[in-house]
Amino acid sequence: MDTKAAVAYKAGEPLKIETVQLEAPKAGEVLVEIKATGVCHTDAYTLSGADPEGLFPAILGHEGAGIVVEVGADVKSVKPGDHVIPLYTPECRNCEYCLSGKTNLCQAIRSTQGKGVMPDGTSRFSIGGEPILHYMGTSTFSNYTVLPEIAVAKIREDAPFEKVCLIGCGVTTGIGAVINTAKVEPGANVVVFGLGGIGLNVIQAARMVGANMIVGVDLNPSKRALAEKLGMTHFVNPSEVEGDIVPYLVDLTKGGADYSFECIGNPKVMRQALECCHKGWGVSVIIGVAGAGQEISTRPFQLVTGRVWKGTAFGGAKGRTDVPKIVDWYMDGKINIDDLVSKILPIDDINQAFDLMHRGEVIRSVVTF
Amino acid sequence: MDTKAAVAYKAGEPLKIETVQLEAPKAGEVLVEIKATGVCHTDAYTLSGADPEGLFPAILGHEGAGIVVEVGADVKSVKPGDHVIPLYTPECRNCEYCLSGKTNLCQAIRSTQGKGVMPDGTSRFSIGGEPILHYMGTSTFSNYTVLPEIAVAKIREDAPFEKVCLIGCGVTTGIGAVINTAKVEPGANVVVFGLGGIGLNVIQAARMVGANMIVGVDLNPSKRALAEKLGMTHFVNPSEVEGDIVPYLVDLTKGGADYSFECIGNPKVMRQALECCHKGWGVSVIIGVAGAGQEISTRPFQLVTGRVWKGTAFGGAKGRTDVPKIVDWYMDGKINIDDLVSKILPIDDINQAFDLMHRGEVIRSVVTF
Repeated sequence: MDTKAAVAYKAGEPLKIETVQLEAPKAGEVLVEIKATGVCHTDAYTLSGADPEGLFPAILGHEGAGIVVEVGADVKSVKPGDHVIPLYTPECRNCEYCLSGKTNLCQAIRSTQGKGVMPDGTSRFSIGGEPILHYMGTSTFSNYTVLPEIAVAKIREDAPFEKVCLIGCGVTTGIGAVINTAKVEPGANVVVFGLGGIGLNVIQAARMVGANMIVGVDLNPSKRALAEKLGMTHFVNPSEVEGDIVPYLVDLTKGGADYSFECIGNPKVMRQALECCHKGWGVSVIIGVAGAGQEISTRPFQLVTGRVWKGTAFGGAKGRTDVPKIVDWYMDGKINIDDLVSKILPIDDINQAFDLMHRGEVIRSVVTF
Repeated sequence: MDTKAAVAYKAGEPLKIETVQLEAPKAGEVLVEIKATGVCHTDAYTLSGADPEGLFPAILGHEGAGIVVEVGADVKSVKPGDHVIPLYTPECRNCEYCLSGKTNLCQAIRSTQGKGVMPDGTSRFSIGGEPILHYMGTSTFSNYTVLPEIAVAKIREDAPFEKVCLIGCGVTTGIGAVINTAKVEPGANVVVFGLGGIGLNVIQAARMVGANMIVGVDLNPSKRALAEKLGMTHFVNPSEVEGDIVPYLVDLTKGGADYSFECIGNPKVMRQALECCHKGWGVSVIIGVAGAGQEISTRPFQLVTGRVWKGTAFGGAKGRTDVPKIVDWYMDGKINIDDLVSKILPIDDINQAFDLMHRGEVIRSVVTF
């Protein structure tokens, strides 16, 4: 079949709207009509050429929502008409990782996904016979896309696509970091570095689980209002703090953060996030993705005296299991996604969505078909 | 009263056996007759002058066992005749740290202990009217010493002092790192860097809790036999591994260590210990104490893909609660301390115990009075 898609031909160039040929789903695969997709920093990172694993030409996009149109042989967990969210972290429920009970990093299709192809080693996308690669196993910048069955989460049918598509990445990453990775408990003091799409979701999850102080740290004062609406109790602008921000935050939290979250991708901030944690038990979670080759460091004394340094990918969420629950939480009003969708654009204007993100004018732009 | 003690007058100089004046215990304090004490690397670190917090003149020693001789006012938990192990990490059961349920780092007497004095700000030791400082709140290189009540663990009376004194530091640190900090579970694969007094206890604790592979890493092949006796299943000598030891260990453990332990104090090894951990869930615990100002580093990707970096002090053990249990485990034959005591010397030969340690000829020397 033919489908409309935004194609990334080359690093650093704008996406191009094209008619792309899409093969039917093979065994274990599903064809999904994407109704809406967020535009995320990770897409921009790959498009910029800075991602050493970025491949071209490809159809980017990994934060979508849509409807199953057709299923290949042996597909049992979804059927045409089901509403789904594509998962860049699949959940096969059979690999060593899924069965460990300790991680969400399903490895069932890791190697082919990293190469931009389906598990059989080929792409379903092409133009004029030339293959176009998949991206993160999702390629949601295409109106129709083919995904492995294990890479779709079935969700309720009354959830609006242009909102819940963000649960495909940013919302789940931030909320999951709080509830799965850090396991923040009621009464805890939390410090969040970076009040973008991830940090805001960390804040609202911290509020949801009953945190006490929820301190947001950002150089941009315009982030403050929405962060406060979502639950931030204290705003700290590092440019307004005299001297080192670490002792400032330790003092503010009366001994240090019980949990801190780095939502920027800056190794220096990652160190601050660790070191502002409470002696004896503070846990710091790295969510932001640092540039290739960058390193974090600290004195081992920080760990020996009880701080814990960890990280998270997709918020430690097992997609097929956890994503439907987060959709419910949105529909029940427990979390706010509406305010995170700053702008809704047609796919033809997708390059404008990238521009808005680069200018910091939006939390998220959502593109619809 | 007068007591015999080994006094550290100055950094870098041998200890001097002296008759020291010891004041009676004040309210909340106990007088303990030390029967035996281990000589540990931490004593040597302070004596060398490398410890930026080291103070002189002082009576070192922190790995002892003895008998309560006299108690000050208000002491309720021990009485004369009780056998005890001094605790450099006390357990007041009332401070924010003790009550958190998350850490063993009781802070009740932290500031005075760090200054070499009792909680009232003064020392009980003196010579000719000149005060001699306490060390780590314990000063077990003195035949009689005064300790806060919250810094002694009452133990059973049939346990031999010259063995269980090691539970005051090395044994508990290694065993506690496994059971309290890492919480190693049956079937886990464990890698231990450094097969000295701490590493050997990590090994025997890993065996006790039912670990699968227990890999020991040390440059010294003479460490192998005892480590195997205590439970090590695989020995790796980094000098015999071609290329990087990290992929070698990941391969050996079929994906990486579920838990790794750094028992040396070398920041480069700390990084290897983290990076040899299994993607998705590997936990690396820093036990070794690095030199002043040294830093650890890694790529944040190591944490984002599921590895956890933590540390431990006194094995995360709450001394008054956990030390008596570890004494029971020794008496029940669950753990082996006899083979860790390489040599027993009289206090007059304590400098020889330091020499033996520096030459790597002993796991532990124990000094008796």
